[in-house]
Amino acid sequence: MKKIFVAVIAALGLVSGLNAADKVELDAPDFNREMSLMQAFQQRQSQRKFDGRELSKRDMSDLLWCAYGINRADGRHTAASAMNRQDVDVYVLLADGAYSYSPADNSLVLIAAGDHRDLMAGKQKGFPLAPVNIVIVSDTSRFGSSDKAVAERMGAMDAALVSQNIALFCAGAGLATVPRMSMDEEGLRKLLNLSADCIPMLNHPVGYPAAE
Amino acid sequence: MKKIFVAVIAALGLVSGLNAADKVELDAPDFNREMSLMQAFQQRQSQRKFDGRELSKRDMSDLLWCAYGINRADGRHTAASAMNRQDVDVYVLLADGAYSYSPADNSLVLIAAGDHRDLMAGKQKGFPLAPVNIVIVSDTSRFGSSDKAVAERMGAMDAALVSQNIALFCAGAGLATVPRMSMDEEGLRKLLNLSADCIPMLNHPVGYPAAE
Repeated sequence: MKKIFVAVIAALGLVSGLNAADKVELDAPDFNREMSLMQAFQQRQSQRKFDGRELSKRDMSDLLWCAYGINRADGRHTAASAMNRQDVDVYVLLADGAYSYSPADNSLVLIAAGDHRDLMAGKQKGFPLAPVNIVIVSDTSRFGSSDKAVAERMGAMDAALVSQNIALFCAGAGLATVPRMSMDEEGLRKLLNLSADCIPMLNHPVGYPAAE
Repeated sequence: MKKIFVAVIAALGLVSGLNAADKVELDAPDFNREMSLMQAFQQRQSQRKFDGRELSKRDMSDLLWCAYGINRADGRHTAASAMNRQDVDVYVLLADGAYSYSPADNSLVLIAAGDHRDLMAGKQKGFPLAPVNIVIVSDTSRFGSSDKAVAERMGAMDAALVSQNIALFCAGAGLATVPRMSMDEEGLRKLLNLSADCIPMLNHPVGYPAAE
């Protein structure tokens, strides 16, 4: 029993080279990384099979920065948002915990320790677990709109802009991913302490592709 | 008067190197085009000022293929769609006509001759005209869903995946663009012969950036 406990702790510490610390500093994006934009478009596809390997910290860092990092001195992001309301928040479920991605200082902030990745499956029971699972949430309250349908449409669009960033980075970096709407929305709301205006719009499991 | 008429005809013929023919074959995508994916993420921004130049046929062709071209033998696209329903249709308004982009044979099909670009402004009167204007439409009937709100959310997301393809290609190619929801939706429905289930979700003016 003690042996198993030690092994689990060791495994948690190895996840993505990260510890389940309250805050994990990500590496600065590698702008010299050689990936062709045209070839990313050529390779873009939905892939649902992942091998067992954790993502390297390099890949994890570049992935999240490309998804919704800040790319300018004025604090704007790699994806636009309706009326520049920056309604999107990005969360990451790893084997060792649920984190919030903080674009301001390019870090992961721990929300809840433990493996909560089963919340990704939603109605698709048996969906294979990936090492990294990104949940794209729109906080529709930031639109300040009294028309809920309009705010939800803008939030859905803004989340999808981030989703395509993820899809193209993965295509360029040789990672497997797929955009999904299915997930345990209520379970995620509770885990991530989301208010009623915050809608988990899309999610992306991400991993190295399983060998054919 | 005659001189002006001749000049106008000549200008129409020069638009993007295209004639207002019923069908315009686009160039095959240039996969060897040197653009860095990471630098595209670094450069991604909304730009609303365009200089007067028409897009080259090379840029126009790569732009549309990256937006929603077919990148695999099974007919799938550079952007995913909910349940692979491929609900998105891409239209292009140029100075000489309104076209439908045909991914199947990488061509533009003329819908209506003439300059209809004023339909892009919507409520934003005075929005500067760009040489190329892409309208991203979701045909929500393709979801076969009885829940209109769900179908509209999926359509909004799918349109935004295409929108981010455009944003990143433009960032990589040094083109200016911005995703917009504002447009004359009813005018576009009429011009493009859209059924009630077809929703113009987003549009992108695209051009070379105006000098500072």
